[in-house]
Amino acid sequence: MATAFTTSRRVEFADTDMAGLIHFSIFYRYMEEAEHAFLRSLGTRVYEPQSDGTTISWPRVSAECTFHSPAYFEDELEVRLSVVRIGRSSLALGYDFWKQDTHIASGSIKTVCCRIDDNHEMTAMEIASEFRGLLESAQASE
Amino acid sequence: MATAFTTSRRVEFADTDMAGLIHFSIFYRYMEEAEHAFLRSLGTRVYEPQSDGTTISWPRVSAECTFHSPAYFEDELEVRLSVVRIGRSSLALGYDFWKQDTHIASGSIKTVCCRIDDNHEMTAMEIASEFRGLLESAQASE
Amino acid sequence: MATAFTTSRRVEFADTDMAGLIHFSIFYRYMEEAEHAFLRSLGTRVYEPQSDGTTISWPRVSAECTFHSPAYFEDELEVRLSVVRIGRSSLALGYDFWKQDTHIASGSIKTVCCRIDDNHEMTAMEIASEFRGLLESAQASE
Amino acid sequence: MATAFTTSRRVEFADTDMAGLIHFSIFYRYMEEAEHAFLRSLGTRVYEPQSDGTTISWPRVSAECTFHSPAYFEDELEVRLSVVRIGRSSLALGYDFWKQDTHIASGSIKTVCCRIDDNHEMTAMEIASEFRGLLESAQASE
Repeated sequence: MATAFTTSRRVEFADTDMAGLIHFSIFYRYMEEAEHAFLRSLGTRVYEPQSDGTTISWPRVSAECTFHSPAYFEDELEVRLSVVRIGRSSLALGYDFWKQDTHIASGSIKTVCCRIDDNHEMTAMEIASEFRGLLESAQASE
Repeated sequence: MATAFTTSRRVEFADTDMAGLIHFSIFYRYMEEAEHAFLRSLGTRVYEPQSDGTTISWPRVSAECTFHSPAYFEDELEVRLSVVRIGRSSLALGYDFWKQDTHIASGSIKTVCCRIDDNHEMTAMEIASEFRGLLESAQASE
Repeated sequence: MATAFTTSRRVEFADTDMAGLIHFSIFYRYMEEAEHAFLRSLGTRVYEPQSDGTTISWPRVSAECTFHSPAYFEDELEVRLSVVRIGRSSLALGYDFWKQDTHIASGSIKTVCCRIDDNHEMTAMEIASEFRGLLESAQASE
Repeated sequence: MATAFTTSRRVEFADTDMAGLIHFSIFYRYMEEAEHAFLRSLGTRVYEPQSDGTTISWPRVSAECTFHSPAYFEDELEVRLSVVRIGRSSLALGYDFWKQDTHIASGSIKTVCCRIDDNHEMTAMEIASEFRGLLESAQASE
């Protein structure tokens, strides 16, 4: 899978647990942080209030991660994001974590573009064509 | 300080860090969880949407905690809540954490009763007299 | 899948995000908390220091979760744990989150029984036969 | 108080709560992250395993924070660290959070230099003279 976007993340002390390494649940936060940095790089935000009082956002449908090798306090992880699949309203992004030449973890998050109203009711909506174009370009990049 | 309310909290694995004990930042979450359990015991919630679209809530003004003795994974902590001070719109609650006869930590959180509008603008408001009565009763209890 | 163990979890304020509902990464913490409660119910702990200085624990191999319906602050979630697969050294547990009749989320975590030495080096080991028996009984229960 | 060290932190989505702003407990994590960045800038780490099997670290004695103004998702906070007090074994650092010209929060953490043995027993120890010199220089800097 071609890497569409790269960022990095230092493992902080509070991210570790008593086993001495990063707690597995933290990878989901790191994936989301990379997702939001990717969206910023495309000129948008994951949570966009609209003038009519609704908000366009990307609720999570599912998320998975496989842990290949442990990561420790103060490790600098490289996060490589790939565009796995662009659906009508859904978007799946992949994430690979590397510590130099060691593959630490790989995961993905599937989201769906939604309009959210005042009562937190979510309605799936088609991904805007301009943004779809940006995603397709990112997917094709190397 | 008289104990107004008591609850308990097990230290979970994700609450620990690589030093092998509970991470200090977690105590602030535990204090808040005890605060919310206390509010529920008084028949209210920390975040109450109103029919006019505003929300009455209790933003934090300050919080402090002193750590006397370490706590470990699966420790069952007793949390003793006390009503430190009831102001016109402010409320300070105290928290003592015990593991049997060992005093683990003691802290406090100062909050202020606010009306929050759609733009997240907060305006301090007087504590409702009925709720003030409940707080005063809790403060006087032993 | 037969439910082997049931516990419950209240959604706390700090578990929510600005979208107004539980943050998706929190479900992985809830799954782990249920796992540890299940292990306690079987008379063991997820992290067992041994007399020779090593520790027997269950590092995570992978984890996934699908989010069916949102959960909100102060929701009381029922967590139903099932034993998905017992391997030679690996163990996969499943988790279903319910709010009364609403299926909130379903996930699983695959772990592997390991001996961990002083340098955090992990070596997979066969699941002890006595514990395997307890897991098989739990798997067969309804 | 003179600023000894400056870093920055973006407010991430998972750092917010349903009130729409950063959860107060997160500031304690941000303060600690700044502390560790400061220690790295002085050539040391907060958790230093020694050749004799003990570890030199800085357990927290107390921490407090006052919240002046809310911070929101994707805000870029500037964190200004100051050296408040250097004791024989204790060290108090102060933290001010700014969003451009808005003072968001100010806090402090008091720590104590300890030697930690295999049983997590902590013994306070004098701050090494070389490191004390670095701290004093940082305290005097502007």
